[in-house]
Amino acid sequence: MRFSNNPLITPKDIQPTTDGYEVFSVLNPAACTFNDEVLLLLRVIERPVQTKGFLSIGVLDVGSGGYKRLDFSLDDPLLNYDDPRVIKYDGVTYLTGMSHLRLARSRDGVNFKIDPKPTIMPSTYEERYSIEDARITKLGAAYYVYYVAVADFGFSTILLKTTDFVRFERIGNIFPGVNKDVAIFPEKINGMYAALHRPDTGFFANPSMWMAYSPDLVHWGQYSLLMQPRAGKWDSSRIGAGTVPLKTDKGWLEIYHGADEDHRYSLGVLLLDADDPSKILYRDSKPLIEPAMDYETNGFFKDVVFTNGMVVSPEDPGKMFLYYGSADERVCGAALMLDELIGRCNCPGRAAKPRVVMSRL
Amino acid sequence: MRFSNNPLITPKDIQPTTDGYEVFSVLNPAACTFNDEVLLLLRVIERPVQTKGFLSIGVLDVGSGGYKRLDFSLDDPLLNYDDPRVIKYDGVTYLTGMSHLRLARSRDGVNFKIDPKPTIMPSTYEERYSIEDARITKLGAAYYVYYVAVADFGFSTILLKTTDFVRFERIGNIFPGVNKDVAIFPEKINGMYAALHRPDTGFFANPSMWMAYSPDLVHWGQYSLLMQPRAGKWDSSRIGAGTVPLKTDKGWLEIYHGADEDHRYSLGVLLLDADDPSKILYRDSKPLIEPAMDYETNGFFKDVVFTNGMVVSPEDPGKMFLYYGSADERVCGAALMLDELIGRCNCPGRAAKPRVVMSRL
Repeated sequence: MRFSNNPLITPKDIQPTTDGYEVFSVLNPAACTFNDEVLLLLRVIERPVQTKGFLSIGVLDVGSGGYKRLDFSLDDPLLNYDDPRVIKYDGVTYLTGMSHLRLARSRDGVNFKIDPKPTIMPSTYEERYSIEDARITKLGAAYYVYYVAVADFGFSTILLKTTDFVRFERIGNIFPGVNKDVAIFPEKINGMYAALHRPDTGFFANPSMWMAYSPDLVHWGQYSLLMQPRAGKWDSSRIGAGTVPLKTDKGWLEIYHGADEDHRYSLGVLLLDADDPSKILYRDSKPLIEPAMDYETNGFFKDVVFTNGMVVSPEDPGKMFLYYGSADERVCGAALMLDELIGRCNCPGRAAKPRVVMSRL
Repeated sequence: MRFSNNPLITPKDIQPTTDGYEVFSVLNPAACTFNDEVLLLLRVIERPVQTKGFLSIGVLDVGSGGYKRLDFSLDDPLLNYDDPRVIKYDGVTYLTGMSHLRLARSRDGVNFKIDPKPTIMPSTYEERYSIEDARITKLGAAYYVYYVAVADFGFSTILLKTTDFVRFERIGNIFPGVNKDVAIFPEKINGMYAALHRPDTGFFANPSMWMAYSPDLVHWGQYSLLMQPRAGKWDSSRIGAGTVPLKTDKGWLEIYHGADEDHRYSLGVLLLDADDPSKILYRDSKPLIEPAMDYETNGFFKDVVFTNGMVVSPEDPGKMFLYYGSADERVCGAALMLDELIGRCNCPGRAAKPRVVMSRL
């Protein structure tokens, strides 16, 4: 079911934002259909072209909107770079790469053309280090784009609204603190907007999936635990939403990610009750996709498949295109038949062919 | 300014909830005035009376609403109890004590009578380990009580509503994940409810104070950073709201807590703009109260003064009674003159006597 032309997009396919910078990763795209095209909103990670003896990074210069370059001498005893994703210098933590979001477009969902310039760059103080791992939810005629913002003082979830993917209106910071993997349902449920999310759980427990509800998309509450990692299984260490939930006549279909103790990230199927998504109808005991291909097992962070979006094939309403980041470095795709996905879920009446239900506001 | 009869309340003053249990700490009370009395909502921490060779704890049995007792043999190699506040056993983390909330009542704000039974006990799955560090905000005729709930899967902030301090209506879980020190303002600001809070900031930064807004007290958003710890000062390591902000004619008066790298917790004055509390008018460079007395420097967790509430003296509108936990073990009080507190704040027109402004909805 993986696309035969995987990986679809690799860092060398992406033009850097500015001279003197290089793209070292492209991953975890949001996905939607818009004007007869499949759109991916790629997370692109850049850094300055490195020079011998130095570790160089870029952070947002909030005033100018451009990059501010920081160069750390590898000899400097104040520098700590044990983790490839972060560096620590003199008590301050930085990211080794700054991410922005960039559109890729496709008529067939398989072959993508990448925009030469960023679509959404970090622009505010909450986004000084990076904007990462977007998802897109269509609600009525509007598309809502939301992502994790990273700054020197912590994490935010920022919500934008667009109708044309050219202009983006900033709605606000909708989840505080370390809260990732937000996926907003594409219609109201019992009169309220709903979302999956993954708040930090401190030292007590492993990251879990929670529900939240909102009257207006701006203010969220009614937080409740949906499900936790499962000891001994593929999703034993941490779990979070993957795709934006897709409404089917059997319930909300969600592809979520789980990692085990070895930080091996796989994807599994979850089916939630249509009227009360806090009810779990089915959860995969074995992963749907686990790292297996060389482009998934080797890379910037090995053994990772991680999804932020799935669309219905432009040509076949019974076929889904799932997009995912592999090894935190590349973008891949897989074709999944809806009846096979729902067939895993032990639904009553499973003999009847499942179908996608168009969401409405 | 400290009360001469400090500590006001100690563990021996508190009757345990049930036979076979003992109270080992009483701390961090919410405070309000109600029916001509000062009410404190104490955090009371209990554990089973310990027996030789064992470490025993209680957790909520959600079904019965009572304690479920767990006994761990000190010889058990799976037991880890290096930290006095938590134990780890076979991959699961527990608290060494379970907290509930209990009322203490006073006519003069200085001498308190403690209810013999708990006022609010843990009762839901989010509260299985503990409910801690309440605050009380009066909005119109209703009193809102909110606190941190701790369970095996993490932290929540639970909001209750009462008009009589006998029946409490559960409003919901209003902040997800590791988010403590919520303090809801006692009136709407520009048409919205407002709160201070302290989301977890991950490995990037030290815990900081943030703002949030809500249309209905149930759903919160518009998150923004208010202020961070300050290197080299008394509040260098972590900060959070203390008292519920008090409206004065000079702005919102807030007593917040800060800790330094040695986990020494002190209290300081903060003055926020009346119409836009995200504007800081004044922040104490030196603490208002720091651990100095024996009952503050010695105890369950030494060198801690930590406040959750302040009231206007029943007898003098220019005098404030601040209540605080000391050394995570006792409840203390201090009398503070409003003009001295505001006098620290370098306000324009400081010669005019400051006054408390009654909040209205």
